[in-house]
Amino acid sequence: MPTSNPAIDSAMRTVYFVSDGTGITAETLGHSVLTQFESFRYRRVRAPFVDSVDKARELVARINENAVLDGRRPIVFSTLVDPQANAELRRSRAMVLDLLDSFVVPLEQELGLQSTHTIGRSHTMSDTGSYHRRIEAINFALAHDDGQSAHGLQTADVILVGVSRSGKTPTSLYLAMQFGVKAANYPLIPEDFERDELPSALPPHRRKLFGLSISPERLSEVRNERRPDSRYASLENCRLEVSAAERMMRREGIRWLSSTTKSIEEIAATIMNEHRLHRNRD
Amino acid sequence: MPTSNPAIDSAMRTVYFVSDGTGITAETLGHSVLTQFESFRYRRVRAPFVDSVDKARELVARINENAVLDGRRPIVFSTLVDPQANAELRRSRAMVLDLLDSFVVPLEQELGLQSTHTIGRSHTMSDTGSYHRRIEAINFALAHDDGQSAHGLQTADVILVGVSRSGKTPTSLYLAMQFGVKAANYPLIPEDFERDELPSALPPHRRKLFGLSISPERLSEVRNERRPDSRYASLENCRLEVSAAERMMRREGIRWLSSTTKSIEEIAATIMNEHRLHRNRD
Repeated sequence: MPTSNPAIDSAMRTVYFVSDGTGITAETLGHSVLTQFESFRYRRVRAPFVDSVDKARELVARINENAVLDGRRPIVFSTLVDPQANAELRRSRAMVLDLLDSFVVPLEQELGLQSTHTIGRSHTMSDTGSYHRRIEAINFALAHDDGQSAHGLQTADVILVGVSRSGKTPTSLYLAMQFGVKAANYPLIPEDFERDELPSALPPHRRKLFGLSISPERLSEVRNERRPDSRYASLENCRLEVSAAERMMRREGIRWLSSTTKSIEEIAATIMNEHRLHRNRD
Repeated sequence: MPTSNPAIDSAMRTVYFVSDGTGITAETLGHSVLTQFESFRYRRVRAPFVDSVDKARELVARINENAVLDGRRPIVFSTLVDPQANAELRRSRAMVLDLLDSFVVPLEQELGLQSTHTIGRSHTMSDTGSYHRRIEAINFALAHDDGQSAHGLQTADVILVGVSRSGKTPTSLYLAMQFGVKAANYPLIPEDFERDELPSALPPHRRKLFGLSISPERLSEVRNERRPDSRYASLENCRLEVSAAERMMRREGIRWLSSTTKSIEEIAATIMNEHRLHRNRD
């Protein structure tokens, strides 16, 4: 029965991300592992807040149903902490990849400490100070989006500069959300290129500046979605703005990267690295 | 030599999060695992973009230095994919917890597929469509923050309602950033409670509404940071607003949760779950 042999069949399966908390850890790692299998196609099921044995039993029933319907066993990425719920899950017809067990048990030995087996700790707001810093950083990013306010730039951890639509806003928000870092952003606009000077609010904070550039083709695409067939979005204008911005950043000694082929995560991680910024959340 | 016995010493150690990409997967899981050890104190070192054997060697030198300085071996959470870089890392004096190896190898067997051993795939913008959806969702959240625009609410996936400072903005942005979900947010203000009616823009979208509440004490604290000693921030006023908002949500059949003791991740994951929303990113 070749179709029921999971070892040789890589057609559609169901993958579960199971957690007693938000499921974000299970999903992040599971996703990262699965991208190593390019040709693998699967249905994704999120199962957060499985925080009782009863809920684990209900979930196992669903998983087993899937096993029958799919004709192959589901894959489960789990961060369940409760031993009893875990035992239920292991009785399912799935392949269970248990994220915590694989690392918590060896760490207990290494550290000579018992793990707390506490549910859903990783994204719990146990530390009010940390929560507060993130919210503060998000509010800062919103208040200092698109050069809205030069006031308070001295408290920024980093100030992103670049032409309109080069990715400054999502990057600022991600830096705030993920790392609790206060990121302002300031546009470089045609008037700046005419004067051939940085916006006057920026030179006092030169060491905090980080530039984003983008390919003119991609920029024109993005701008055309917002303002179709405008001069602003034309490839010719995008070429002029991008080359002027890059020339200015080079002259001013501002480090920059191109956002064209990078995800928000990659841009943010690069900035954290280059500016030697530290996670401010915990 | 009890101080050099890592099994019984749980004082300050160095923990590395090593990746050939952004390091976000390594850090997310590592953090989640380490929160299971409440009394464990450590120094955190992020080492993203270790994408060559040379960089792996440099890192190993740093790790070994730490081992000597700390008097105990560092812990390394790694998502390195390149086999040669991995081999270098394993030669270090650290305890290496390899996230991909622990799961990729068993999955190769289960799926009958070779993994691609490709570096930094999980946060690479390989799928332009997915990137585009996230950016679009972030722009949507910004354009529909705090009831700024009723126009376009019909394209929202979810509309968050609640009193001012109940956590709507960070939650909307997180839903966009993490899940590519379009979340608008609309405040419930004293005028709505006087009229005892939902803001007129909302009833047509009743099924998309989700409420955030908050304890009056916490709300007063948060508002006092923004406008100290105002009537707006007073505990008395916060009590009135919160109870009026909860009464209104109950009457209108709007599901809601209290953000008081929840992290942004928990609130967002709950909303995804309750509204049966699907990740829109990939």
